[in-house]
Amino acid sequence: MAHRIVVLGGGFGGMYAARALKRKLRDTAEVEVINAENYFVFQPLLPEVGAGSITPGHAVSPLRFLLKGVSVRKALIDSVDFERKVVIVFQGIQRRPTEVPFDHLVIALGQGVDLSRMPGLEEHALKMKSLEDARRVREHVIEQLEHAQVTRLPDTKRGALTFTVVGGGFSGVETVGEMKELIDRSLRYYPEIEPSEVRVLLVEYAGRILNEMPDRLAHYATRHLAKHGIELKLNTGVASATHRQLVTTEGEVIDTRTIVATIGNAPLPVVQRMGLASKHGRVAVRRSLQVEGRDNVWALGDCALIPLKDGAAERADFAPPTAQFAVREAKRIAQNIAATLDGKPAKPFSYRSRGALASLGAKRGVAEVFGVQLTGFPAWILWRSYYLALLPGIATRVKVLINWLLDGLGARSVVQIRAHSKPPLRYVYFRAGDRIYDAGDRSDGFYTVISGAVEMERTDPETGEKTARRIGPGGHFGERLILGATRRKTTVRAAEDTKVLVMNRDEFLMLAESFSAFRDYFRPYMEKRGVKIPLDDGPEAG
Amino acid sequence: MAHRIVVLGGGFGGMYAARALKRKLRDTAEVEVINAENYFVFQPLLPEVGAGSITPGHAVSPLRFLLKGVSVRKALIDSVDFERKVVIVFQGIQRRPTEVPFDHLVIALGQGVDLSRMPGLEEHALKMKSLEDARRVREHVIEQLEHAQVTRLPDTKRGALTFTVVGGGFSGVETVGEMKELIDRSLRYYPEIEPSEVRVLLVEYAGRILNEMPDRLAHYATRHLAKHGIELKLNTGVASATHRQLVTTEGEVIDTRTIVATIGNAPLPVVQRMGLASKHGRVAVRRSLQVEGRDNVWALGDCALIPLKDGAAERADFAPPTAQFAVREAKRIAQNIAATLDGKPAKPFSYRSRGALASLGAKRGVAEVFGVQLTGFPAWILWRSYYLALLPGIATRVKVLINWLLDGLGARSVVQIRAHSKPPLRYVYFRAGDRIYDAGDRSDGFYTVISGAVEMERTDPETGEKTARRIGPGGHFGERLILGATRRKTTVRAAEDTKVLVMNRDEFLMLAESFSAFRDYFRPYMEKRGVKIPLDDGPEAG
Repeated sequence: MAHRIVVLGGGFGGMYAARALKRKLRDTAEVEVINAENYFVFQPLLPEVGAGSITPGHAVSPLRFLLKGVSVRKALIDSVDFERKVVIVFQGIQRRPTEVPFDHLVIALGQGVDLSRMPGLEEHALKMKSLEDARRVREHVIEQLEHAQVTRLPDTKRGALTFTVVGGGFSGVETVGEMKELIDRSLRYYPEIEPSEVRVLLVEYAGRILNEMPDRLAHYATRHLAKHGIELKLNTGVASATHRQLVTTEGEVIDTRTIVATIGNAPLPVVQRMGLASKHGRVAVRRSLQVEGRDNVWALGDCALIPLKDGAAERADFAPPTAQFAVREAKRIAQNIAATLDGKPAKPFSYRSRGALASLGAKRGVAEVFGVQLTGFPAWILWRSYYLALLPGIATRVKVLINWLLDGLGARSVVQIRAHSKPPLRYVYFRAGDRIYDAGDRSDGFYTVISGAVEMERTDPETGEKTARRIGPGGHFGERLILGATRRKTTVRAAEDTKVLVMNRDEFLMLAESFSAFRDYFRPYMEKRGVKIPLDDGPEAG
Repeated sequence: MAHRIVVLGGGFGGMYAARALKRKLRDTAEVEVINAENYFVFQPLLPEVGAGSITPGHAVSPLRFLLKGVSVRKALIDSVDFERKVVIVFQGIQRRPTEVPFDHLVIALGQGVDLSRMPGLEEHALKMKSLEDARRVREHVIEQLEHAQVTRLPDTKRGALTFTVVGGGFSGVETVGEMKELIDRSLRYYPEIEPSEVRVLLVEYAGRILNEMPDRLAHYATRHLAKHGIELKLNTGVASATHRQLVTTEGEVIDTRTIVATIGNAPLPVVQRMGLASKHGRVAVRRSLQVEGRDNVWALGDCALIPLKDGAAERADFAPPTAQFAVREAKRIAQNIAATLDGKPAKPFSYRSRGALASLGAKRGVAEVFGVQLTGFPAWILWRSYYLALLPGIATRVKVLINWLLDGLGARSVVQIRAHSKPPLRYVYFRAGDRIYDAGDRSDGFYTVISGAVEMERTDPETGEKTARRIGPGGHFGERLILGATRRKTTVRAAEDTKVLVMNRDEFLMLAESFSAFRDYFRPYMEKRGVKIPLDDGPEAG
């Protein structure tokens, strides 16, 4: 019977491992890839998607198309039972678990993002990890331009036109460069925005950017970004964030509506749940890429800590989390699994980086290849060619190339296909003194204070008399929204650093319809304020 | 001082009106378009987007690019103060209202969709009105194929492979035809799906499809759809829908995970709020396109009821809601506003349809042009050429043409870029006897019964003894999710037709953290069931 090899994850590591396994083992093995999406995403192109120089569809390729002869299962991985040798998954809308048996298991799930160490960052920052993240960054940037074009409020305009990227690694540098280019090329459609009003910042905790690259190239990149009007804040971390400010570890408060966080790599919960040996938040593997203590479980790519020599201890002794390495690791795993099935010994993984490339936007880049350092346009061309060559499938290559050429010619489209709507229940952070809303503003939610306190001020429409009220944890405000009021009657400021829960009207009414306790609690509260909860005759607790 | 003309809406009516006004009046008037999106969407191409034969970005064009010399304001329209002659809008994240003054106002906001007459349809049907709707239909269809490919449950597979389109007008016929083509061309990537397992239906309340077209063409279309394996259910309406079934007015229950509703046109709330004279849910205008009772307010397109002759009474006496008419109405409005500004009389709108076109998928169409009827491939080519010519901007035309040609050659990409995630609080409908969940299923929410009743059955893991419990309105089930349980321990069926509120775990915990009443209510309830609410030490009501 054919051996069953299951690969978890369809990124660089997983996709190339499945391909190499199928080529090597042919009909002697069944190879199956399990992935949450039905496509392979070309991670290094995400900053380009974020800047609209290529469309989301062109940064991805269907796994079923790339992996001929390999089964592809689009499913969420729940857990692995290593004793029974099954992966437990959930497929589509189906809530019944499905068990997928394996003889050998390859774990290539990558890393997640955890921004929770910095208050407010998780809630208010955009990420650059998935295709959807990248798409959202582009739409968000266009939204800010649209808003800055029409607003008459100088503070609002300044916040809308300040764009912050956090993290000076490859992803952060490429994102900030591409973002600046998108803005520069779009301004012609926004006559009310002066180029001098746009502020783009890169915030990096270390003393330099592009840590993985030689000093000379990092310096070139630094100069290039500065020359293109990007402010660099080195030796600077994020202390906290709200939906309109970023506070640095230096205590500086930056008014910004756009924070893109490229930091905070963390293990994925699904990998943690597997309970495998781990180190520095990554799965500990041997040099053969076998997981410590298990001979039929393998790991590679960003989720694994892969020693490049015996007794590895320093950071440089382990494989870096790059596509270049993942592709090589995939080949080694395929060879080692084939050897193991033949009863032969697995060989240790070894590879030396051939170099590093980064695009800086505006047709410039930096590159180090086989020890040779390149900068500027040649480095950028090399960057594009390299990734074009690495793209899977000729059709995708041609499409991306055509798109790149078209992008070089005309203006970039400023179509904002879909704004990101706010979740109906959400936590929002305010700093002491922040305006929460003013009388006359649109009602955008019903607020409950979780921590901190707010100061509410109301002017009597008849006497002109002002009354103020402080609302602390557990207190509510903004309840007139529930009546269907579209405008605020009061002005609310954060008296302290404050965390609130904001709820939309529809959800409030759903809860009032569904929960008698919720209604009973709010009825006297609302009646005191002259607000009758609609649907008050909902079901009673049965 | 230049006259200020404000156009509400950037669809066919609004965009062409703004264009014609600017061309006609040049610097003697300021023309401004206010639209919720920053792009013009080419409505007739939505079924093609829904089938992936063109990408969403190519069915739209930036308004700023189409409307040179016209101001474009991306904003939500709140209301119009006709006395003070201002439009009140909300811009971007800004919650302070902005007033936009006008001398003349053109209303071109189109129509909305209201499916609430049929229980469950609003909650469980996909629409075909916006670009986002169309994109979602495509992703949903691919999701069903992915699921059918891997499931081992025959019922689930049948539901996933049954696709229903409601409404036999242009939009419904084109959607069902394009959808069938998408499925047929994708099946080669899904070896586990037999073509005979796929069922595609078109449900139409009237006795025929394409009501606006001559009988002969409607018959051709009917035969074409049948030949391509599309089931037609005429004289059939929708009685109700759940997330896995559609019940027809004939009492037939169709297991289907996909319902696309192209019916239910209804006035938009923002237009209703204006309080203008209306008839059949549309703004009543005079033959000059001036709104009844107001000389400086004009309306056109789908939102207006436009008489084509004096004393109009029959349906045929009014302009049909098509792009062809909207474009002509736009020209008439521009001429009439120019005349009014010159102190000259406005002229009545009159236009006779030049014909009608519909695509049927699989490179076939029907067309009636200047009285000549065409069917099949020539009609389809005519359809494409006509819309290509109507597309605004050469760049867009070239892009769409290239895409169409590319689509004709290779396979269609089955990349499913983004699944639609369920809202965190949602109403779900079940029919009596429906399975809600089984023991061992994934926990997908905390349930509260709004109306109807469910039957819960639990098997004691030690004794094997079965206990049953009926839960009526106001009762809850599925609370173990709150503990973080990922699997169900009980089996739940709908005992009657039942409506429930389903809430995700994160939102439950947010509410428990924020509302002491919510916690106090649930604490004893949960403790009885051995569930301790995490974060139980949240803030107390202040």
